[in-house]
Amino acid sequence: MEIKNSVMDEFRLIRRLIASSKSSYPDSKGFIKVPPGDDACLLSTIKRPVITTDTQREGVHFNRKWLTPEEIGLKAVTVTLSDLAASYARPVSLFINMGLPLSFSSEEAEDIYRGVGIGLQKYGCTLGGGNLSDSDHLSLDLFAIGEGHDFIFPLRSLAKPGDGLFCTGPLGLARAGLEALQQNHPHDQNLISFFKSPVARFDASEILANHKVLCVIDISDGLKGDSMHIAQASGVTIELAIDQKDIDPQLISFCSERGIPAQEFAIASGEDYELLFSCPPETFRNIKKEIPKAYPVGKCLPFTGKHMIAPPSALSSFQHGKK
Amino acid sequence: MEIKNSVMDEFRLIRRLIASSKSSYPDSKGFIKVPPGDDACLLSTIKRPVITTDTQREGVHFNRKWLTPEEIGLKAVTVTLSDLAASYARPVSLFINMGLPLSFSSEEAEDIYRGVGIGLQKYGCTLGGGNLSDSDHLSLDLFAIGEGHDFIFPLRSLAKPGDGLFCTGPLGLARAGLEALQQNHPHDQNLISFFKSPVARFDASEILANHKVLCVIDISDGLKGDSMHIAQASGVTIELAIDQKDIDPQLISFCSERGIPAQEFAIASGEDYELLFSCPPETFRNIKKEIPKAYPVGKCLPFTGKHMIAPPSALSSFQHGKK
Repeated sequence: MEIKNSVMDEFRLIRRLIASSKSSYPDSKGFIKVPPGDDACLLSTIKRPVITTDTQREGVHFNRKWLTPEEIGLKAVTVTLSDLAASYARPVSLFINMGLPLSFSSEEAEDIYRGVGIGLQKYGCTLGGGNLSDSDHLSLDLFAIGEGHDFIFPLRSLAKPGDGLFCTGPLGLARAGLEALQQNHPHDQNLISFFKSPVARFDASEILANHKVLCVIDISDGLKGDSMHIAQASGVTIELAIDQKDIDPQLISFCSERGIPAQEFAIASGEDYELLFSCPPETFRNIKKEIPKAYPVGKCLPFTGKHMIAPPSALSSFQHGKK
Repeated sequence: MEIKNSVMDEFRLIRRLIASSKSSYPDSKGFIKVPPGDDACLLSTIKRPVITTDTQREGVHFNRKWLTPEEIGLKAVTVTLSDLAASYARPVSLFINMGLPLSFSSEEAEDIYRGVGIGLQKYGCTLGGGNLSDSDHLSLDLFAIGEGHDFIFPLRSLAKPGDGLFCTGPLGLARAGLEALQQNHPHDQNLISFFKSPVARFDASEILANHKVLCVIDISDGLKGDSMHIAQASGVTIELAIDQKDIDPQLISFCSERGIPAQEFAIASGEDYELLFSCPPETFRNIKKEIPKAYPVGKCLPFTGKHMIAPPSALSSFQHGKK
């Protein structure tokens, strides 16, 4: 593990910045026994290590026209840690490899790390280390280690016929925010913030674990795409439907202004990072008391020969940074 | 953690290939409790988790003119795991994010994974997961988790005045191999193989740990560069010198054919991935019995105001894939 680049000094600066910015910084919890700088980083014992990795490439996963460097850093951390939330794991340490275009200024690099630092603090995660190298386009490769729950590890393959399918929060707002940006409607700041600053739902994750929900996934590709992952892995057919009363009023007004059906929009959208889960309806009734904004989005049926029954949609799937 | 790309099927194919290729494949040791495919991967308890990450970018770290896709995959694994060897950790699991140019064929992608699989088997490491995405240039971001030694974690900051500085094997052969390729001398196959197929020295690592050697680093940047890391972290001055008798005969003949001083060449070269370590001379005498090819490369002195005393060199430092 080496840090080699003209912006090496900035990287060190940012690490100091992050480390010193709060006395409550999670390093003080003693996760990191040996900090970055050597060949490798030594952590404390992890009973159930849960690992995930994410890639964010300019032009593929994000577009610098829509996100500032700080927002890119914060969102990359959130998106990566969201996979830990969907696995009932608490964050322990994050590693970031960054490819920086030569055109990037050291201020822009610092801004990315500032965003990373905000994300780390928000979710109580340490920075374990990383690499910097030159690249044609900005790219971030993130690796996160968490500690899993003692008794349960949710899988997308554990949905059963008879389960309901539920979601922990509103869908479609991130995509509406992106479209507001694309259509140059900067007054839709609230919608835009859903696109720019998603939240990893560790709060909901803990509640689902306590209720022994076995099948969870975070919605990055859109409800339809991620439900399909569950349906295929579990060998069930999923029928999707969102009740109009469960659609966020902001999305309804966004869609009605444009003459788009809001349910279809919510189902086809992505990057919300809410948790999608299946469980018996009676379990959901108890969960609903603790996550009042959770609502049903469909049902799991015995496999009919087709994994998905969803309202027809003329909307294309979420395009990340490509637009 | 998602696998999204036109080559997704190849990735699955290769994973099956790797998983099925040997019954002794380390998956059977039970490291991976939940295999790739979900949001995250669950591993068994790791008492002393040691983490490292590496980046390999075409044109920065390697050049496809000199390495086949299979060689790129194998070397990337070796280079990453070498940091675990330098930390006295045994490999547990490896994660790979790959950026593939659209011009890349699925056969070439398979060849990279075949190389990765060879490396994983060689070092007894599982494949934990990864991402694929489109990219302008081929790039590999690797992230490895190992289990550290129970009683010792070597650091580059632990060299002491009075220690000798030692190396576990020959230096300069990888760079000689690269130059043979560049000068179109394909008959130097033996030298070329040192460049193409370095070895991560887990064998030597175990011996050094048993002898309680406290200061270790793997030589990726060249003896001079990596000794500098030790000198700076430890606050000592390092005097480098390699005895002619300890220089590999292949390097001597390579250098004498070209009128280059072999000691300077060995000191300035890189990518050998031998281990560099400091310890008292009497400790080294015992180590030498178990690693007969180990030899002294210098001494650690009280800090003189300058971290490095090395033979003057007209050679530029190792250029990875840039040539």
